[in-house]
Amino acid sequence: MSEVVLRALAHDGEVRAGDDLAELVAAALARAELTARDGDVLVVTSKVVSKSEGRVVAFGGTDDDKRRLIEGEAVRVLRRRGTLLITETRHGFVNANAGVDLSNTHEGTAVLLPDDPDRSARGLRASLRHRLGVSLAVVITDTFGRAWRNGVTDVAIGVAGLRPILDLRGTTDANGRLLEATEIAVADEVAGAAHLVLHKAAGTPFALLRGLDASFLGEGSIAQSVVRAPQGDLFR
Amino acid sequence: MSEVVLRALAHDGEVRAGDDLAELVAAALARAELTARDGDVLVVTSKVVSKSEGRVVAFGGTDDDKRRLIEGEAVRVLRRRGTLLITETRHGFVNANAGVDLSNTHEGTAVLLPDDPDRSARGLRASLRHRLGVSLAVVITDTFGRAWRNGVTDVAIGVAGLRPILDLRGTTDANGRLLEATEIAVADEVAGAAHLVLHKAAGTPFALLRGLDASFLGEGSIAQSVVRAPQGDLFR
Repeated sequence: MSEVVLRALAHDGEVRAGDDLAELVAAALARAELTARDGDVLVVTSKVVSKSEGRVVAFGGTDDDKRRLIEGEAVRVLRRRGTLLITETRHGFVNANAGVDLSNTHEGTAVLLPDDPDRSARGLRASLRHRLGVSLAVVITDTFGRAWRNGVTDVAIGVAGLRPILDLRGTTDANGRLLEATEIAVADEVAGAAHLVLHKAAGTPFALLRGLDASFLGEGSIAQSVVRAPQGDLFR
Repeated sequence: MSEVVLRALAHDGEVRAGDDLAELVAAALARAELTARDGDVLVVTSKVVSKSEGRVVAFGGTDDDKRRLIEGEAVRVLRRRGTLLITETRHGFVNANAGVDLSNTHEGTAVLLPDDPDRSARGLRASLRHRLGVSLAVVITDTFGRAWRNGVTDVAIGVAGLRPILDLRGTTDANGRLLEATEIAVADEVAGAAHLVLHKAAGTPFALLRGLDASFLGEGSIAQSVVRAPQGDLFR
């Protein structure tokens, strides 16, 4: 029987520029009396990744200041409604306000998305392997809105050790017909699943997911596999 | 510590029009030696719901026949690329080919989405309560593509006993600032999470999710809460 377990991991206190996230994860695991195993997935919110990487900037608090920050992160504004901008970021993400985060930040500051979330994930995966002696996949998440559906979900903005798309194209169903809709966005489903245990408390920046099918593990990149190129996009 | 557990539940054999899904779920739980508890969430793929409701139609196998079926289910075609249509269905869902499913179906047939998935979920929830004596939430899922990101994920197309959107608007962060991005699409995150254990085998149409925060439980409807009205949609 296929079984997946998700556990939220708490971290008390601020994350600051230069903090070693692997050390914080190790401490959080120890407090939870959990031992990470090969094949577990460590899910981490982008905010603590950004903070540890010093992606914190001054924010004056005005709408003009907010717009200036957003336009610094965006390469394109797709839609505009009041102060809400739907943007395409330098990374290729389409999200609200270019991921500039004004909540749960210190007064007078805003948090930007990591510069290269896939690279951040690879770095954290290597540090976790070094510190814990196990091979974990890493998924860095952020909260995005969607077209056509209300509400936001967490999606993966960076991965390491996980294939973000499970490609079943060319495989057939039980009746021999080619399967449709067969590139499954596993990393985004992991991110959304982790949000179910993470989103209530700002004090749980990490989650550990255990039981993911081993076929999902491997090399991958959100930027290369999940971000849809503008020229192939029917909605840009 | 917040912990969520997902288990896939197998069902051998076909689901046919008139089959009692609650009976199939009860049998699947028994085989897995699981006892459902109040507050568990039963996730079920739309395909078996549709089959049990007789939403199976003849399909001649031609592109013309496929287009005819799709146009019967769609109220609008948003985009067209080759034989792929991005449609708005009668339910208000924006998806590929109006949810007409040609894989894992009997030769010469196609499966349509349930007529009213929220109603289907309410019916299954009542049957499960009657049969098992516990109060389960029900989430009916289907596999949708997304704008801007490659790959498909499972989303919720019908719910009962679960609030599909967790509305945190008006609440403040640790520093007293109003939280942004605070309507969380919990039902879609549950659907995507279940896909992590369901998607490999066509023989696992059900999943049981345990450990969801009790604040997520309550009355709700995908059609009323998650489907974004066309006039409020920036991408239609």
